Amino acid sequence: MAETGIEYVRMAEFAWNRIEPEPGTYDFEWLEEAVELIGERGMQVVLCTPTATPPKWLVDEYPSIRQETRDGTPKEFGSRRHYCFNSPAYRDESRRIIEAVASRFADNEYVVGWQTDNEFGCHETTHCYCDDCQSAFQSWLEEKYGSIADLNESWGNAFWSQEYASFAEIDLPGPTPAQEQHHPSRLLDYDRFASDSVAEYNRLHTELLRQANEEWFLTHNFMGDFPSIDAFDVTEDLDFAAWDCYPALVTQQAPDTPDPSSERGAELARVGDPDVVGMNHALYRGVSDGPFWSMETQSGDIRAFPYAPEPADGMVRLWSHQAAAHGCDTVSYFRWQRCRFGQEQYWGALNNYDGSPDRGLPEARQVAEEFDDLPDLDAPSGDVAMLVDYESLWAFDSELHTPEYDYWGHLRAYYRALRARGVTVDLVPTDRNLTDYEALIAPSLHLVDEELAERLAGYAADGGELLLTARSAMKDEHHKLRDELAPGPLSDALGARIVQHESLSPGSEMRTTYGGETYEYRTWAEWLTAEDATVVGRHSSGVATGEPAVVLNDHEDGHVGYVGVWPEPELADAITTDLLERADVQFGDRLPDLVRLTERDGYTWVTNFGSKPIEISSDADIVLGGPIVEGRDLSVVRAAPHEIEVNQSV
Amino acid sequence: MAETGIEYVRMAEFAWNRIEPEPGTYDFEWLEEAVELIGERGMQVVLCTPTATPPKWLVDEYPSIRQETRDGTPKEFGSRRHYCFNSPAYRDESRRIIEAVASRFADNEYVVGWQTDNEFGCHETTHCYCDDCQSAFQSWLEEKYGSIADLNESWGNAFWSQEYASFAEIDLPGPTPAQEQHHPSRLLDYDRFASDSVAEYNRLHTELLRQANEEWFLTHNFMGDFPSIDAFDVTEDLDFAAWDCYPALVTQQAPDTPDPSSERGAELARVGDPDVVGMNHALYRGVSDGPFWSMETQSGDIRAFPYAPEPADGMVRLWSHQAAAHGCDTVSYFRWQRCRFGQEQYWGALNNYDGSPDRGLPEARQVAEEFDDLPDLDAPSGDVAMLVDYESLWAFDSELHTPEYDYWGHLRAYYRALRARGVTVDLVPTDRNLTDYEALIAPSLHLVDEELAERLAGYAADGGELLLTARSAMKDEHHKLRDELAPGPLSDALGARIVQHESLSPGSEMRTTYGGETYEYRTWAEWLTAEDATVVGRHSSGVATGEPAVVLNDHEDGHVGYVGVWPEPELADAITTDLLERADVQFGDRLPDLVRLTERDGYTWVTNFGSKPIEISSDADIVLGGPIVEGRDLSVVRAAPHEIEVNQSV
Amino acid sequence: MAETGIEYVRMAEFAWNRIEPEPGTYDFEWLEEAVELIGERGMQVVLCTPTATPPKWLVDEYPSIRQETRDGTPKEFGSRRHYCFNSPAYRDESRRIIEAVASRFADNEYVVGWQTDNEFGCHETTHCYCDDCQSAFQSWLEEKYGSIADLNESWGNAFWSQEYASFAEIDLPGPTPAQEQHHPSRLLDYDRFASDSVAEYNRLHTELLRQANEEWFLTHNFMGDFPSIDAFDVTEDLDFAAWDCYPALVTQQAPDTPDPSSERGAELARVGDPDVVGMNHALYRGVSDGPFWSMETQSGDIRAFPYAPEPADGMVRLWSHQAAAHGCDTVSYFRWQRCRFGQEQYWGALNNYDGSPDRGLPEARQVAEEFDDLPDLDAPSGDVAMLVDYESLWAFDSELHTPEYDYWGHLRAYYRALRARGVTVDLVPTDRNLTDYEALIAPSLHLVDEELAERLAGYAADGGELLLTARSAMKDEHHKLRDELAPGPLSDALGARIVQHESLSPGSEMRTTYGGETYEYRTWAEWLTAEDATVVGRHSSGVATGEPAVVLNDHEDGHVGYVGVWPEPELADAITTDLLERADVQFGDRLPDLVRLTERDGYTWVTNFGSKPIEISSDADIVLGGPIVEGRDLSVVRAAPHEIEVNQSV
Repeated sequence: MAETGIEYVRMAEFAWNRIEPEPGTYDFEWLEEAVELIGERGMQVVLCTPTATPPKWLVDEYPSIRQETRDGTPKEFGSRRHYCFNSPAYRDESRRIIEAVASRFADNEYVVGWQTDNEFGCHETTHCYCDDCQSAFQSWLEEKYGSIADLNESWGNAFWSQEYASFAEIDLPGPTPAQEQHHPSRLLDYDRFASDSVAEYNRLHTELLRQANEEWFLTHNFMGDFPSIDAFDVTEDLDFAAWDCYPALVTQQAPDTPDPSSERGAELARVGDPDVVGMNHALYRGVSDGPFWSMETQSGDIRAFPYAPEPADGMVRLWSHQAAAHGCDTVSYFRWQRCRFGQEQYWGALNNYDGSPDRGLPEARQVAEEFDDLPDLDAPSGDVAMLVDYESLWAFDSELHTPEYDYWGHLRAYYRALRARGVTVDLVPTDRNLTDYEALIAPSLHLVDEELAERLAGYAADGGELLLTARSAMKDEHHKLRDELAPGPLSDALGARIVQHESLSPGSEMRTTYGGETYEYRTWAEWLTAEDATVVGRHSSGVATGEPAVVLNDHEDGHVGYVGVWPEPELADAITTDLLERADVQFGDRLPDLVRLTERDGYTWVTNFGSKPIEISSDADIVLGGPIVEGRDLSVVRAAPHEIEVNQSV
Repeated sequence: MAETGIEYVRMAEFAWNRIEPEPGTYDFEWLEEAVELIGERGMQVVLCTPTATPPKWLVDEYPSIRQETRDGTPKEFGSRRHYCFNSPAYRDESRRIIEAVASRFADNEYVVGWQTDNEFGCHETTHCYCDDCQSAFQSWLEEKYGSIADLNESWGNAFWSQEYASFAEIDLPGPTPAQEQHHPSRLLDYDRFASDSVAEYNRLHTELLRQANEEWFLTHNFMGDFPSIDAFDVTEDLDFAAWDCYPALVTQQAPDTPDPSSERGAELARVGDPDVVGMNHALYRGVSDGPFWSMETQSGDIRAFPYAPEPADGMVRLWSHQAAAHGCDTVSYFRWQRCRFGQEQYWGALNNYDGSPDRGLPEARQVAEEFDDLPDLDAPSGDVAMLVDYESLWAFDSELHTPEYDYWGHLRAYYRALRARGVTVDLVPTDRNLTDYEALIAPSLHLVDEELAERLAGYAADGGELLLTARSAMKDEHHKLRDELAPGPLSDALGARIVQHESLSPGSEMRTTYGGETYEYRTWAEWLTAEDATVVGRHSSGVATGEPAVVLNDHEDGHVGYVGVWPEPELADAITTDLLERADVQFGDRLPDLVRLTERDGYTWVTNFGSKPIEISSDADIVLGGPIVEGRDLSVVRAAPHEIEVNQSV
Repeated sequence: MAETGIEYVRMAEFAWNRIEPEPGTYDFEWLEEAVELIGERGMQVVLCTPTATPPKWLVDEYPSIRQETRDGTPKEFGSRRHYCFNSPAYRDESRRIIEAVASRFADNEYVVGWQTDNEFGCHETTHCYCDDCQSAFQSWLEEKYGSIADLNESWGNAFWSQEYASFAEIDLPGPTPAQEQHHPSRLLDYDRFASDSVAEYNRLHTELLRQANEEWFLTHNFMGDFPSIDAFDVTEDLDFAAWDCYPALVTQQAPDTPDPSSERGAELARVGDPDVVGMNHALYRGVSDGPFWSMETQSGDIRAFPYAPEPADGMVRLWSHQAAAHGCDTVSYFRWQRCRFGQEQYWGALNNYDGSPDRGLPEARQVAEEFDDLPDLDAPSGDVAMLVDYESLWAFDSELHTPEYDYWGHLRAYYRALRARGVTVDLVPTDRNLTDYEALIAPSLHLVDEELAERLAGYAADGGELLLTARSAMKDEHHKLRDELAPGPLSDALGARIVQHESLSPGSEMRTTYGGETYEYRTWAEWLTAEDATVVGRHSSGVATGEPAVVLNDHEDGHVGYVGVWPEPELADAITTDLLERADVQFGDRLPDLVRLTERDGYTWVTNFGSKPIEISSDADIVLGGPIVEGRDLSVVRAAPHEIEVNQSV
């Protein structure tokens, strides 16, 4: 490991039974020996609380710790994450094991930080339907609403006689006749409660770890695009966030990825979609509000359904550099050696299962050398931000309009357009200070309360460029429509209102004008009445023909715009470049397919995920690589993206 | 409302908890106030028994009222219809609340009628697997069969050792190893029992309402094409039937609708398929044996999966007129204003969620005016009838041969052909008096007992034109094959027997001759031996090549025909026009796509669901509209359909 | 029956309730009368133990006998196979009924043999999750491993803290958070246990039947390609195996069958795929180690989802001959007459439901006559064998890499290639004596222990031609990777190692060279390092370009080859013909589509499943049919396949 240039070793994330093979009997020797070996070779250790895998003896002693499915079936021992976040018994046991491992290593010089648990929520374990969760949910609601009358009013329980007489009457949302139609406000609060439960459980870890050694850094390895946990909330108790960067996995799972039976889909399964991966980097940079880690970086073939192709040559290196360019300070690979037993034998590693170097190892070694040659850089920070709001995501999923409306995919429509122009995009939560951004996009920001509306309007009033997109501010914070048309409390700033919406099938005509040109859109259409706003785009197909689709309003020193459709790439480019121009943000020509420019602290990574070489020309120094960037290769230039010209036909 | 021209207001269908916010404490003031307001403005009120939504306090007091799924999971509070029709506790509670509301409004001059409950069976709630249902099913069987030996014989329980020693041994059909292969006779009786349970529960309502005020009219709002409840049976206790007419919903759900990713499918999602909607009108006219109501008429965009496009301009008006033409006496819109909370926020209304007029409101106002201008008309009655038999539908579904055999879709093959010729088609139950019909189609009338066979043969013998189609009379009333070939007791009248059947994949050649021409068919093929009958069509593809596919027999003063395939439109047209000619029923040229002529009491509605204008020419008066009928527009002519010529190229 | 030429009548397989209508009261009269009638007409009877359908009274007395699903739901009475193989109560009841029927017919001269139960495992009943199974599984594991430490080590339970402290801690693999990711070693042993449970339950039958009359032959009717029961194991207690030969069913279910919406798929649904059917014959010949029976041969249309077309004319006869050619000694049809009640009314028979002859009857009569004219023949035995290993199949399914990797389909890639050359292929278990085979293919022989490796290497060392294919010998017998690269203990004999593997989507380029030509492959790619072996094929697409894909090694007196891809037909032909040449096995030209030559004891059946005639030329006698073989017809020639020339253009 040391010879490969590895600096940190993360380990013991599932080792509870080896640490405590029977109740109360601990065995740390093997782990201390490993830590010692690592430390002696100049590397540092990141340990993990082993709570993701309670041993069988623990499950048998406390059967109540098991999660339950919606219909009440307990989730049994035999994989991992078979515990409920709200189980008092499991919280006690967690405290016990965390204190034991933390105190044992509190003074160990080689242990520098901790990962809490592992991939919270994996295997659909954010939501549980056990009795402990039911009690906890009732308390959570009582805490939030105070009186049942307030809850009934806030949710709108008069509908279908759904009013409650007390908090004790409120069940978890189990099977009900209209399976896909639970009360949306009830589901939203249940989603909030479930995410809060994870945050609370994570806090249990961080408090104990900080008590043991306040010097340690604390992180957690989130999963890409993971929908059910608010990563901003959980990270408030951490020093920074990490995510497990498997480009083949997140790309195959993204609804906007072409089918793998197409040539394009097959290629992406080998290289990953740079914007699917990149937006995750941007998300966890935003979650961390600064540099982040890639705790598990794909280092070979992985069991990513439905297909598990080998990565193209060079991708392990390219993914590592892409992460660094986006603000990742530590690229940690999963894993050193392929495991020879258990569930993850089909999950590649730097070394093959016989211990021999696998394809990724020389690439990782090269990365280590190249990173050593680069200066220490501050994390990137963009002039443009996109708001991320998990509650809006949950709101869509708890009241599905059309199965094709994917929250992340909608964000990506704008993210892709900006990235194709080399622009750095920050993904930030709604409560972040926004004043420094030149332009701010609020894509499908569905739930907006008065306070947020005021801040957003204020942002524009103070000279900011605010762009709202489809379905933004349609609902109040309880997931209800208002008694005024959307965008409700933002309507004055926008100078327009949304009067209609519809979801559309791929067989429909979906065209709108924008700036005099005609463009395609997909999936969703709204049309507006423009009271004060200027109509900059009008529907040119369907029922909405002639109606405003895109509007722009002067709001004091800035602008507020609204895009009432889900734009296809050409329209997204036109809209975002206009936004950049209004905001006076510099940008370059549209980049070739799969080529991206990513700036970090004055250095720009030119990454080529495609198979064909490109040529770059710039007056600035190329500090890594050269002017010809081969397929799956990269260069680093000391210049801003818009100062670099990219030519595909070499 | 009054200014819009609304005459009836239906309400309070889910208001149990507002009427009885805690056990035994009633609050009618708000409702009385609403009734008063409506009445004072000259409108009338239709109230509803609020039984579709038992409040949480009731569910908690009587947990046994919850329905159970096949594997025993209770259906929890949180949407609606979470009660079992056979629960003695729920029947008691239902009686209590019905008596309370009925007595309260018994003398209210503005309340003129009632809707029982709401959409019986919605969210797959016709079938329940709780203990109360098990007891009730055993009693139902004992009542029907008297002795267990008779049941064993009737079902054919010798097969796979399925004989029972007593009624108490008979469980509800829960999970069994051969999931898709429960005993078909047992499933059929369970389906009958489930439908009967709904009828019995409905009767509980009607008896109490009639006791309170025998002047009230009583109805129920059925759902379109709804398969699991025999609407004829339930309506025996009502004054007439109503249905909830959502063209976008029933069209997207119909298996014969093109995929919404096609251009045609996308258009139909905006306008509805006139024959899918029309056949529902005809069904509920048949169920009512006269005029019916459209209790919830689509008035805007609705959350119809997978896509929820806005209706095309003019459709609210066009759907209203189509309903009237088919015999609907009251077109009631769902709903006055879009709801701002709860499950149905994505369900459009005449007014938007802020209270402003939505797209449908002016159309509804125009409809009210136009209806006022038209004379009072008798319900349409056709010379041609199609038999509808829910038990045959259940028989198909309980013993699936191929997933593509959809009962309503098969009926629609003939319905479409007749409607494309402007012919009025009645949909009637098998026990209706049939003697006045010139022609009678029995499409896939699968279950035929001796008595029915005798009546049908008698109909032909007396000069009627009877047409049987594929799979008719294959089974006895217990869902068993007979010891003679199909059509069993109708074989003598037909002069032929079905010797083979097969289901075919879309990749198969499926052609038959008919009257010297070659035609395409789909899904299903049978071939016959013609003893006395004349062979008028022969298979010209596949194993059956050369075998009789369509036969016709003289039967005393009439004819009996049989069509052994599922015809594609050209063949259906050839067969039905021959039938009409034999029956001496007049018909016109084939109508353009999406254009229909619908006669009611001497007036013919020309409805154009398409986007292109048509021109009509007739010697008769045009009492509404003119000779050019634009897309999504209509005219009304004082003439019979065959007297009107339609020309698409204007 | 006798007039049709039938010799054996199988019956009473589901007659428990008729034999014992109430507990302890037996009624054999009807059955004895039937046996008598059959015997008097010169036919013989095969009886069945009626255990597949325990009557309702038995289920009610012993509810614990019911199987349970993974989530604990009992499988209820109402179809068949609703019993658990490990239920002590059901084993007692089984003994009682078996002893009763066996002793009753022990001296009956007409009863010559028995079928145990019926289609073990049908309707997914091999696996059960009840308490009796849990205890039995724990005992089975303790028996196998002796100590829990050995089990932990053998499974590799250190992964994810899955170690157990005692056998009593080991649950059946119920619902766990990572649904598709139970521990693969645990699942494999559970699969072994489930199959062993069936074998043990079958043994209960055979011991009692042999005690009653040791002259009886004993068999069981397996299902085609059935995955979850090791037919070799079960058949050790039988005299020979039978299988239920439904070509329309096994063909529609085979993943390598084209979609039925294609023309080709539609044709195959009528005639069956000769190699899908043929490989099943070869399998059960291998299971029997000699002649086998087709206990239920398709005799008409069957309810084979999704489509149930009528067989093409002649297929009942052709299927019968195909079976005979492959070594089937008795072709028994399912069934004499279509049943008029219960679950299988849509399942064809020799006679229609009214008792009249159906389409298959004359064909069956002709078969009987033709079989009489042919001499008694020994079962075929090939020079080429393919190894079948159910445990490897289970291993794939318990650790899915890509849903497209179908074990039987992979075998069929090689089987089809050999059969297209007229070669007889034996399917044999790994513990069979292999020394007499000239060539041996081990397709995807995933699990290989040291002993098997030694035998296979020894086979090649002694002059055999061994061909390993993709994924062979990757794992040890516990489903774990080794600490050396695959093929582990076979690496020395192969002189090469597999260094990479990947699954690929249909959109990927998948090409390899072989012998100088370029070929297509599908689904799976591996590449190798050839230490001593010769590289005979190299990848020419994708990441693997240039890497060895197919290698061949001299191993003492023979060769060991390895194919690292799933070959498309052209490549499979090239590889297998090279193998045959090395092995000095004679073969002919590639046969036309759907035409096969099958040799049995010096006679070759020329079967033409296609619709176009072929012409055969040979110096040898044609003992049945003639030189022109029409579509769906056959000839029998006294010659070896390679001595017969087939010409499609007649």
